[in-house]
Amino acid sequence: MARPQISDSRIREYCGLFGVFGRSDASELAFLGIYAQQHRGQEAAGICTSDSRILRRHAKLGLTTQVFDGDVLNSLKGHAAIGHVRYSTTGSCNEINSQPLMVTSAHGQMAVAHNGNLVNAAEHRNALEARGAIFQTSSDTEVILHLLASPEHANTSDPLGAVMRELSGAFSLLFIFPDRIEAVRDRHGLRPLCIGKLADGKFVIASETCALDMVDAEYVRDVAPGEIVTLSETGMSTRMFVDASEVKPAHCIFEHVYFADPSSNVFGQNAHAFRVASGRQLAREAPANADFVIPVPNCARCAAIGYSEESGLPRGRGFTTSHYAGRSFIMPTQRERDLAVRMKLNVIREAVQGKRLVVVEDSVVRGTTTRGKMGALRKAGAKEIHLRVASPPIMHPCYFGIDFPDPSKLVAPTRTIEEIRDYLEVDSLAYLSHEGMLACAKQHADNYCTACFSGNYPIQVTTPQDKLALER
Amino acid sequence: MARPQISDSRIREYCGLFGVFGRSDASELAFLGIYAQQHRGQEAAGICTSDSRILRRHAKLGLTTQVFDGDVLNSLKGHAAIGHVRYSTTGSCNEINSQPLMVTSAHGQMAVAHNGNLVNAAEHRNALEARGAIFQTSSDTEVILHLLASPEHANTSDPLGAVMRELSGAFSLLFIFPDRIEAVRDRHGLRPLCIGKLADGKFVIASETCALDMVDAEYVRDVAPGEIVTLSETGMSTRMFVDASEVKPAHCIFEHVYFADPSSNVFGQNAHAFRVASGRQLAREAPANADFVIPVPNCARCAAIGYSEESGLPRGRGFTTSHYAGRSFIMPTQRERDLAVRMKLNVIREAVQGKRLVVVEDSVVRGTTTRGKMGALRKAGAKEIHLRVASPPIMHPCYFGIDFPDPSKLVAPTRTIEEIRDYLEVDSLAYLSHEGMLACAKQHADNYCTACFSGNYPIQVTTPQDKLALER
Amino acid sequence: MARPQISDSRIREYCGLFGVFGRSDASELAFLGIYAQQHRGQEAAGICTSDSRILRRHAKLGLTTQVFDGDVLNSLKGHAAIGHVRYSTTGSCNEINSQPLMVTSAHGQMAVAHNGNLVNAAEHRNALEARGAIFQTSSDTEVILHLLASPEHANTSDPLGAVMRELSGAFSLLFIFPDRIEAVRDRHGLRPLCIGKLADGKFVIASETCALDMVDAEYVRDVAPGEIVTLSETGMSTRMFVDASEVKPAHCIFEHVYFADPSSNVFGQNAHAFRVASGRQLAREAPANADFVIPVPNCARCAAIGYSEESGLPRGRGFTTSHYAGRSFIMPTQRERDLAVRMKLNVIREAVQGKRLVVVEDSVVRGTTTRGKMGALRKAGAKEIHLRVASPPIMHPCYFGIDFPDPSKLVAPTRTIEEIRDYLEVDSLAYLSHEGMLACAKQHADNYCTACFSGNYPIQVTTPQDKLALER
Amino acid sequence: MARPQISDSRIREYCGLFGVFGRSDASELAFLGIYAQQHRGQEAAGICTSDSRILRRHAKLGLTTQVFDGDVLNSLKGHAAIGHVRYSTTGSCNEINSQPLMVTSAHGQMAVAHNGNLVNAAEHRNALEARGAIFQTSSDTEVILHLLASPEHANTSDPLGAVMRELSGAFSLLFIFPDRIEAVRDRHGLRPLCIGKLADGKFVIASETCALDMVDAEYVRDVAPGEIVTLSETGMSTRMFVDASEVKPAHCIFEHVYFADPSSNVFGQNAHAFRVASGRQLAREAPANADFVIPVPNCARCAAIGYSEESGLPRGRGFTTSHYAGRSFIMPTQRERDLAVRMKLNVIREAVQGKRLVVVEDSVVRGTTTRGKMGALRKAGAKEIHLRVASPPIMHPCYFGIDFPDPSKLVAPTRTIEEIRDYLEVDSLAYLSHEGMLACAKQHADNYCTACFSGNYPIQVTTPQDKLALER
Repeated sequence: MARPQISDSRIREYCGLFGVFGRSDASELAFLGIYAQQHRGQEAAGICTSDSRILRRHAKLGLTTQVFDGDVLNSLKGHAAIGHVRYSTTGSCNEINSQPLMVTSAHGQMAVAHNGNLVNAAEHRNALEARGAIFQTSSDTEVILHLLASPEHANTSDPLGAVMRELSGAFSLLFIFPDRIEAVRDRHGLRPLCIGKLADGKFVIASETCALDMVDAEYVRDVAPGEIVTLSETGMSTRMFVDASEVKPAHCIFEHVYFADPSSNVFGQNAHAFRVASGRQLAREAPANADFVIPVPNCARCAAIGYSEESGLPRGRGFTTSHYAGRSFIMPTQRERDLAVRMKLNVIREAVQGKRLVVVEDSVVRGTTTRGKMGALRKAGAKEIHLRVASPPIMHPCYFGIDFPDPSKLVAPTRTIEEIRDYLEVDSLAYLSHEGMLACAKQHADNYCTACFSGNYPIQVTTPQDKLALER
Repeated sequence: MARPQISDSRIREYCGLFGVFGRSDASELAFLGIYAQQHRGQEAAGICTSDSRILRRHAKLGLTTQVFDGDVLNSLKGHAAIGHVRYSTTGSCNEINSQPLMVTSAHGQMAVAHNGNLVNAAEHRNALEARGAIFQTSSDTEVILHLLASPEHANTSDPLGAVMRELSGAFSLLFIFPDRIEAVRDRHGLRPLCIGKLADGKFVIASETCALDMVDAEYVRDVAPGEIVTLSETGMSTRMFVDASEVKPAHCIFEHVYFADPSSNVFGQNAHAFRVASGRQLAREAPANADFVIPVPNCARCAAIGYSEESGLPRGRGFTTSHYAGRSFIMPTQRERDLAVRMKLNVIREAVQGKRLVVVEDSVVRGTTTRGKMGALRKAGAKEIHLRVASPPIMHPCYFGIDFPDPSKLVAPTRTIEEIRDYLEVDSLAYLSHEGMLACAKQHADNYCTACFSGNYPIQVTTPQDKLALER
Repeated sequence: MARPQISDSRIREYCGLFGVFGRSDASELAFLGIYAQQHRGQEAAGICTSDSRILRRHAKLGLTTQVFDGDVLNSLKGHAAIGHVRYSTTGSCNEINSQPLMVTSAHGQMAVAHNGNLVNAAEHRNALEARGAIFQTSSDTEVILHLLASPEHANTSDPLGAVMRELSGAFSLLFIFPDRIEAVRDRHGLRPLCIGKLADGKFVIASETCALDMVDAEYVRDVAPGEIVTLSETGMSTRMFVDASEVKPAHCIFEHVYFADPSSNVFGQNAHAFRVASGRQLAREAPANADFVIPVPNCARCAAIGYSEESGLPRGRGFTTSHYAGRSFIMPTQRERDLAVRMKLNVIREAVQGKRLVVVEDSVVRGTTTRGKMGALRKAGAKEIHLRVASPPIMHPCYFGIDFPDPSKLVAPTRTIEEIRDYLEVDSLAYLSHEGMLACAKQHADNYCTACFSGNYPIQVTTPQDKLALER
Repeated sequence: MARPQISDSRIREYCGLFGVFGRSDASELAFLGIYAQQHRGQEAAGICTSDSRILRRHAKLGLTTQVFDGDVLNSLKGHAAIGHVRYSTTGSCNEINSQPLMVTSAHGQMAVAHNGNLVNAAEHRNALEARGAIFQTSSDTEVILHLLASPEHANTSDPLGAVMRELSGAFSLLFIFPDRIEAVRDRHGLRPLCIGKLADGKFVIASETCALDMVDAEYVRDVAPGEIVTLSETGMSTRMFVDASEVKPAHCIFEHVYFADPSSNVFGQNAHAFRVASGRQLAREAPANADFVIPVPNCARCAAIGYSEESGLPRGRGFTTSHYAGRSFIMPTQRERDLAVRMKLNVIREAVQGKRLVVVEDSVVRGTTTRGKMGALRKAGAKEIHLRVASPPIMHPCYFGIDFPDPSKLVAPTRTIEEIRDYLEVDSLAYLSHEGMLACAKQHADNYCTACFSGNYPIQVTTPQDKLALER
């Protein structure tokens, strides 16, 4: 019997997590907490609550405000809640993969929300299936619940710790059981996860601090790499699931470059401050003779501030943003290819006409969108375009939760800088250096994962073929 | 940790099944097949197809024509399909329980659709959970897939047969694997399941023969109690999963009394013919002095034909039916209690005014609806109402797939016939005798399950507490 | 400038009306009133209420229970309400034509709901447009509001009466103004309209008495042809808008033959009783040698009762009805032509196999559906089929509100009875005679419009070209 | 009879217009044209097309991408199209007011889309109603169509010109007739309207030039105040509907201050450039001792550039914007009042903590939102907040299409600057001077309407009571 190629690894997506324990308005706080992190995932949203006896769950495809309304939040009764938003990766929208994932085992109900990606999920899944397990989703997260339910872990003194030790890869996790929430971060701290405190002393957990701001919680500290934090009726308790010697920080530098909200602190540093610093560094590394600096909205705005400050070039505005562009709209006729760019950005022709521009971009992935934007500036009459990218060229796949396209579709791996410049049709092009990027980071360079830029993976990945695995 | 009371037994619902193998229009035939059996389940509909490599599934809450459209059917590619409709039981509407239920195991993908109810699902589930299994639904059907995936069965020469032998209760099942469909019927044949042949020689499977008529298939024979029928590229093959000695037919007599479409043959007998016979028998057992006979639409129309024929009383029409009443409509204000009845039935006042009526009903469950209908006739001026019920009083719960209310809510167990007559406010009342009912059936009386009337269960049910289990 | 062909005449549809004055639950009663008359129109539903100061309106395409819910009914505040359901005519579904149609004029707000069809709407519309009027719908109803607002009528002592005298054709109308409801019936009484009284003495108006039953109102009397009935704070008052000499009853006989609910009394006679009588008459006119009589569901069931009673042939059941067939479902592939029939009706093969059947049908329009049904019986093994139609052949168009297809598409005008029999593939065929049909009616034959059968139009129609007018 | 208070004047909203003639992809271009102007109206969108014989229309509540899809655009056949987007004013969402408004008159079909507000619509409506006209909407736009259809205009040599001369107020209009499009601008040019040319020589009309950019059209010129531009098979032609002496430009300065997209040129000047100049002027008029300048996103970003350039203070970023905030979300519980602000803006705490900020805002209306934003900065630790508003205080109502709240709800009319500063809880507050604002505008000061700031209305408004008129 032919068996479809199965792999959990296709779920390579950003996600945002939020948890709260001990509040009668738990579902509402969870809603606000994931809403504040909507930039971490726009495909699906879900919340699971506990009233200490029963778990309740609501999760669907859509934005947080589409998935939930007052009635639904009211029906999610309970004093504890975890929430999850998931990033859209083209074609993989699938209601059945919506999180939190909720199941029943011999030990009762449990649900989990996951940010990150396991690199040994396929091995676990194969082993579990060999023992008779059935899988209803294509997500690596289901593996975690199977492991938790299996007697060899369930019957140990700390089943959760035991299972966490078996997982390899990136995992910031929030579990909810009828009586408690458990927050876990892998021993590399690849994805962010932090603890906040509400005015009444109750604790919340979030991927980013912007979610703490939304619910008026004060930042307490990050969940440490290798730590399990428990929220229950007795307050907060903590334990490490690995020895201190096994903790090897490898924080995803791309969270700072692009992903985190500028208002958030992740890995002990403000994302806005990191980006301003990267812009300054970029100005030092790659100055340009120009009339002014413009960012590509919205992500490069912080880096453009830094570039402007350091270079002394005034900062202008070249694009306006449409806030109304949702899912791509299919035209009846085949229209020209740059329509998609124009439907998201308008160029301020008057501002760029005849001007020599430094254009600051946070990163370049495939290059096609950047090329469209540069073309729009050129068409509007820009005299010179000096593209400055506030991160190094992206050369390698991420196995830890970022869904970059196949390396074959990245613009950088197969081209020299000059060839990229030529492809993007700009007058000059410079990327931030690897060292320059790390110089902007607060922690020691060894504490970051820069694999997408450098190819140095903090964890050995033995099954790169997973990248090509079919989705079912 | 408090554990929620878990039981599979709450899924006590009628369902309809349809399967087809070897047709390029498989999804479309499956759609027609379940559409024709919509009376067996109006809560949810689903289809799972195989293109010999991959299974695809679409299932949602709603009527068949609401769940599917041409685009969805087109997307369900493949030459094989199984479909399922499910009955609505108040409050238990739950998308996640929609069937066919599809999973992946070590042996690839599989999906199943179930009509019936297992009585040992809780035991299996407990054992499976003890071994680490996790459950994502509250349906007993998920148990079957776990058993199939478990190595102790998967590694036998006939895993399906091995699992079927472990199931106790009512189960007509349709499985789809990438390369085949398997149709199974429990050793009692509690629920119907039949085989049909299309003009091109391909086989279909259906709960009722009315689905064969819809797709222009010729009736071949019933799937036998204890039989597994396989449809694959090599055609149809068959095997018994129990010894002949263990086959103990116990066909649900309620399929004949109420549930099957009058045009369907189930258990080797036409439902319409059974009901006409029951009406004749009723007329012999309980004649009445009246002007004419009217049925309660629509189910009792066949029995009324029989009563009229045997009694010589002309058959009239007292009610007209609204075809537009969907889910109950909630009025802003509290209106009188019989509105619900009136929104489904109009009384033809002119036809019943001043008349002595024999009203034929197929069965009486709680009595409240019947009471409303009798009240409407009385209000319209009926002079005498002689209610004749074409089945015995319902006294006992069904554990095999019919969702009767708690015995405490049935009208019959706690009342004498005279007390029921008084409650229903009719001039006379008679039920068909148990023997009279069985006399209408074609097979020997021992071949039927009459437990809801008689309390004689064909299978010992050891966990009656299941009836009270909470749904999660 | 090319001008599109404009005509009001394409709106040839059945509709149902309901009005109530002086009840705090007016919108709810209106909902029930039009729900009960859903058989008169399944395309669109609407309600307009008055709180004595302001009119509020909600109208949409869809069934009554789809268009309204508790929230909408609550928002339709006021003590007075009129409601409307409209029949679906293929391709003319158009939200903007939904009724009641509500406008503001110099005299304030007003709304109207219309059952029937005007034959001089085009002339009025042309005259109004010549004076500068603009039209937002393609409905003849908008003409009525324009006439009411025009100074030449508005400034008379009885503007409504003046306008009604200018209308030619079929019109049962319900108007709502902030302070009153006015119910009008054309001088021929072509469409039904009756008055009912609630237990608290408040009055309601409805097309059919089945709506009175639904709201527990007692039948008072019909609105007379040529009468205007006013419901207001001062109760009910009445006036004639034409002289008694101009009242020429011409009640649509097709309401009795087919359209009214069997439980309704229209034109002073119960529809069920008429149909039973027509079946008896048919049996006398066209006896048949057969085993039993079956009706084509559901409309011919009453006539079949009559045929059975008179002929002495027992009445059986040949078809079961699906209640789940909504709008036609489009299959991905081109399936055989009789699928549509099968999706609505199942034949009880066992009941008809080898039998000689009298099949009673209420009427035959195009013949294609009847042909499909007869084919299904034949396929199920019927030995002989004697089709008996409880009305004469339909030969002529209706200009008064029934949307028959073009005469060229009717089966009868171009064929002899024998040719129709041949086309329908039945063993014998007989229609009820014209005299026979009228003999079943309670009033004098002159009081009915039988134009679709006889071609005798009670009103001269001068613009038959309207039939071909395009819809915009 | 009590008559509801009727007024057209409540429709005081921004809108965006787009028209195109002579293109087979007319509906698609119209879609893109109104999509690009979505910032001018998010409540409803509509398109009306002509195939030279018949007009077709689709208009609904919702964003452009929600109202239209490929199928709908395909169904809007024709070579000519006009489109319309409408601004949301709380509580007045009403499908029936959706534009383009399409009607039929004696002269055939026509449709119109309107940006602006008539100040003599009530008078015209009263006169029209007195002559018998009926109105189906509460929009002033319906008046225009009535006037066009009325014989006294329709029978003149230039009906459109004649009607335009009768209108008083702000009106940029697009008409579509089967054979042509007509674009009109009132004699004050209160609202923008411009002409563009596609690569193939076909003309388009749009409110703002950003719509020309979207469809790749080149800007030709503005429609002149008092001009009618006709697009037809014979190309573009033009005429004035008033004498040159009556043309009195009074361009709405608020289009420059706030409303137009920064990339658009309106009234012959780029909106971005105007705003940068206003920021510069503001820096000169009201310097501040601070660490850096931050804009309130997104509208004040251009003015902040100017303030930064002129003051030499660096430009920072204090807020990040959520792109996911749609219609306000109702929480089950009553949450603190500034939640709404936080759901739209995140403060970058790290950037503002301990800093002295110049915060640039484009304008202040009620003050409540600004107050919330200032509070958020304060809470995040800002040391000093110097609020600089790039326009004068709003003191008076607009009768020409901007829906300001009642003057009683504006923050400025009843407070001194010091009192406003106190209310907003900032350390210093300055508004741009009236002269300063006009100095940034390219045209002579007399050519602008500054009524909302100055009270100098370019047109005498005689019915200020209209402001209080009820909506029906």
